[in-house]
Amino acid sequence: MTTATAPMGERMFGTILIANRGEIALRIARTCRELGIRTVAVHSTVDRSTAARFADETIQIGPPPARRSYLNAPAILQAALQAGAEAIHPGYGFLSEDPDFAEACEDTGVTFIGPPAPVLARLGDKTMALRSAADAGLPVLPWSGGTVENAAEAGSAAAEIGFPVIVKAAAGGGGRGMAVVDTARELPSAFARVSSAAAAVFGDGRVYLEKYIDKARHVEVQILADRHGNVVHLGARDCSVQRRHQKLIEESPIPGAPADLTERLCEAAVRGARAVGYVGAGTFEFLLDDEGVFHFIEANCRIQVEHPVTEMVTGVDIVREQILIAAGSPLSIRQDDVTVRGAALECRINAEDPARGFLPCPGRVERLTLPGGPFVRVDGYLDQGLDVPAQYDSLLAKVVVWAPDRRQAIARMDRALGECSVSGVPTTIGFLRGILAHPRFHAAEHSTAFVESLIGADAS
Amino acid sequence: MTTATAPMGERMFGTILIANRGEIALRIARTCRELGIRTVAVHSTVDRSTAARFADETIQIGPPPARRSYLNAPAILQAALQAGAEAIHPGYGFLSEDPDFAEACEDTGVTFIGPPAPVLARLGDKTMALRSAADAGLPVLPWSGGTVENAAEAGSAAAEIGFPVIVKAAAGGGGRGMAVVDTARELPSAFARVSSAAAAVFGDGRVYLEKYIDKARHVEVQILADRHGNVVHLGARDCSVQRRHQKLIEESPIPGAPADLTERLCEAAVRGARAVGYVGAGTFEFLLDDEGVFHFIEANCRIQVEHPVTEMVTGVDIVREQILIAAGSPLSIRQDDVTVRGAALECRINAEDPARGFLPCPGRVERLTLPGGPFVRVDGYLDQGLDVPAQYDSLLAKVVVWAPDRRQAIARMDRALGECSVSGVPTTIGFLRGILAHPRFHAAEHSTAFVESLIGADAS
Repeated sequence: MTTATAPMGERMFGTILIANRGEIALRIARTCRELGIRTVAVHSTVDRSTAARFADETIQIGPPPARRSYLNAPAILQAALQAGAEAIHPGYGFLSEDPDFAEACEDTGVTFIGPPAPVLARLGDKTMALRSAADAGLPVLPWSGGTVENAAEAGSAAAEIGFPVIVKAAAGGGGRGMAVVDTARELPSAFARVSSAAAAVFGDGRVYLEKYIDKARHVEVQILADRHGNVVHLGARDCSVQRRHQKLIEESPIPGAPADLTERLCEAAVRGARAVGYVGAGTFEFLLDDEGVFHFIEANCRIQVEHPVTEMVTGVDIVREQILIAAGSPLSIRQDDVTVRGAALECRINAEDPARGFLPCPGRVERLTLPGGPFVRVDGYLDQGLDVPAQYDSLLAKVVVWAPDRRQAIARMDRALGECSVSGVPTTIGFLRGILAHPRFHAAEHSTAFVESLIGADAS
Repeated sequence: MTTATAPMGERMFGTILIANRGEIALRIARTCRELGIRTVAVHSTVDRSTAARFADETIQIGPPPARRSYLNAPAILQAALQAGAEAIHPGYGFLSEDPDFAEACEDTGVTFIGPPAPVLARLGDKTMALRSAADAGLPVLPWSGGTVENAAEAGSAAAEIGFPVIVKAAAGGGGRGMAVVDTARELPSAFARVSSAAAAVFGDGRVYLEKYIDKARHVEVQILADRHGNVVHLGARDCSVQRRHQKLIEESPIPGAPADLTERLCEAAVRGARAVGYVGAGTFEFLLDDEGVFHFIEANCRIQVEHPVTEMVTGVDIVREQILIAAGSPLSIRQDDVTVRGAALECRINAEDPARGFLPCPGRVERLTLPGGPFVRVDGYLDQGLDVPAQYDSLLAKVVVWAPDRRQAIARMDRALGECSVSGVPTTIGFLRGILAHPRFHAAEHSTAFVESLIGADAS
């Protein structure tokens, strides 16, 4: 007999193709297995051994460079057809927010596990996302109101907004492709730099300007929306511990936030999701200024790296909900069913050398001990003796803890990180423990500039 | 700065000696670390490497046989004095329920983390425990009303109770030292067998008789009691998946139990704890018959192997509460704060060979992969390349899962066990997965005789 737990009588996928790698690919496979769904993992030539560990079937789709494997849409669709997959889970990064890929999936008769292509297109263009949010009544920062075509237009927009401003790629997001500008003199070069980088990375050089606030917290709301008009939020996260706009430590709930602030934030996210006809799991991101006012900045149309902290405080398996939503099921939870219990923290353990400017250090993991015991979760993917490939991000594992309150959660995380032992590649573990021990982190008085202030680096 | 989380202003131990080994020793060390408490692990000569992995200091106390190391009270107390430990956590088994050891600790000026010696003495004698429970109004099965001195007395008691009866050691407990007897003819030999085994194992050959019920569920209530008269329960567990009275799979809450039954069970346990002046963490065990009536059988005055399922559904760190109680703190939770959320399961992975009558198979663990990801907890202690010593129990690791409901928890456990891979020693993993897949387990229609009915063995 099967131990599958798909809701009885619902249409459910027999096979899902996982179009990703690393920890998130294993994360998806775990939920599929619990749902009794067969998994097919596509992989590049360097990822064969890890993919084979967790998937029922593996299909090699190309050489290591992402554009020839994990971004190779035709190869992935071909693999889906070959394997008889009825749906594709794209994870995060790679093709996860690509409206063309979502459309190509549907054209091929394969369900894309994520929002519909038009929603991806609308929220993927960060200027359209800002306009949609503003139209829905969400507070946004002063901004250029659209893209700026050249340095002169950028200059007028900046003059109106007031310095400092941040130049952002319209096709960017996730902290990539942006520059903070303090004076008019620096603006033309920053404009050129962001625009050409955006053209190179995203194939779209359009940029826009937004008021930059220095002492802000990065907060965000996890939402779930089904195809039947139901939208719920799963509470809020704080991801203010960042280095160069990349999150290092995330937590839920937002420490020190009054309940009514979190409530208004979550309501805003639900309103924003409804306004664009959102379907799937998504995250609405905000900056929270030092006066306690929040401003929408962007939406992410996929599972986030930091989703486990929300799972720990709510008990909801977000990947499971993604799959059920894609299969057409109504949400299994109503807003009233969602309760946030205790506090959860996540630390991202990267194969990077903090002493050398956090240089990614791929290599062979000679020995690996990960933590365990009460209220500790590890989302990793490597065994010892395996390689961290140079071609992808340097995330080794995520360590997540839960406790009845934040103070105990910090102590638990420090204990858990103390149990980690990795040899063969340098890691950020020691650096993370330093942050955990810092009085400003304990007091939740840190902004997104906190980590740079510790290491003395440029915050841009 | 320290990340210790002991409640401010309370007296707290600076150093705790852990008088145990294996997974529970590491479990205790983890909570100590989170509380900012230094740990000293005592160990026999074969356990040095694992003890050194988790404790701040290790002290070797003797050769492998337990009576010369983990049961060697003078050596342990000497180690406590040498290391400056203010308290001793005895874990489970070994000296954890020994009133003489508890008294010797206090005489030496070291706090015993557990109930006071008189409570251990009273509940450790299972006939006194039954009398105390009956006096407190807890339902008990028909029994001999005290120990029986010889086969003749056993015969009269059995005639009054009615066959089948179970002959139990007064000094037993935890499923050790008992025999089921169906007819008067078998009684004398069973009496002699249990009595002489009890004399050999416990140094106390006294036995008593209890009515035996065949189709019973084993259920139990976790309680916490402080030195200030506060007693709370943390809900109930079902441990009916047993082989030869040893638990294999445990869960919380009790599947299929009406809320009012669980409530009455928990109230009975609290009443029983209050009646004996209980202090510490403890478990009141009951048999639940097929008419839904429960009967107290014994109390365990220590942390249980299966405590993690309760932690998963309540969010309470039971070892932390044990330490705080021993330090004199009032309980950090009131009964109203305790909510049971979702369902948790624990599987004990033993180095045993199911094909050879579950023969314990010590040896070197060549390769070890344990599960991870959402809502999975592993309490283990071994690294690969280390030995499972022949001198102690064969528990390799406990895999614990949580889910919003039992159906999902079973699927998650099956997924988690599927991720386990152990080479070098045989394990019970495959056998456990067979139980998880069984319709009777799914329907929660299994009694304590379930496992024996599967493998066709004698249930005694």
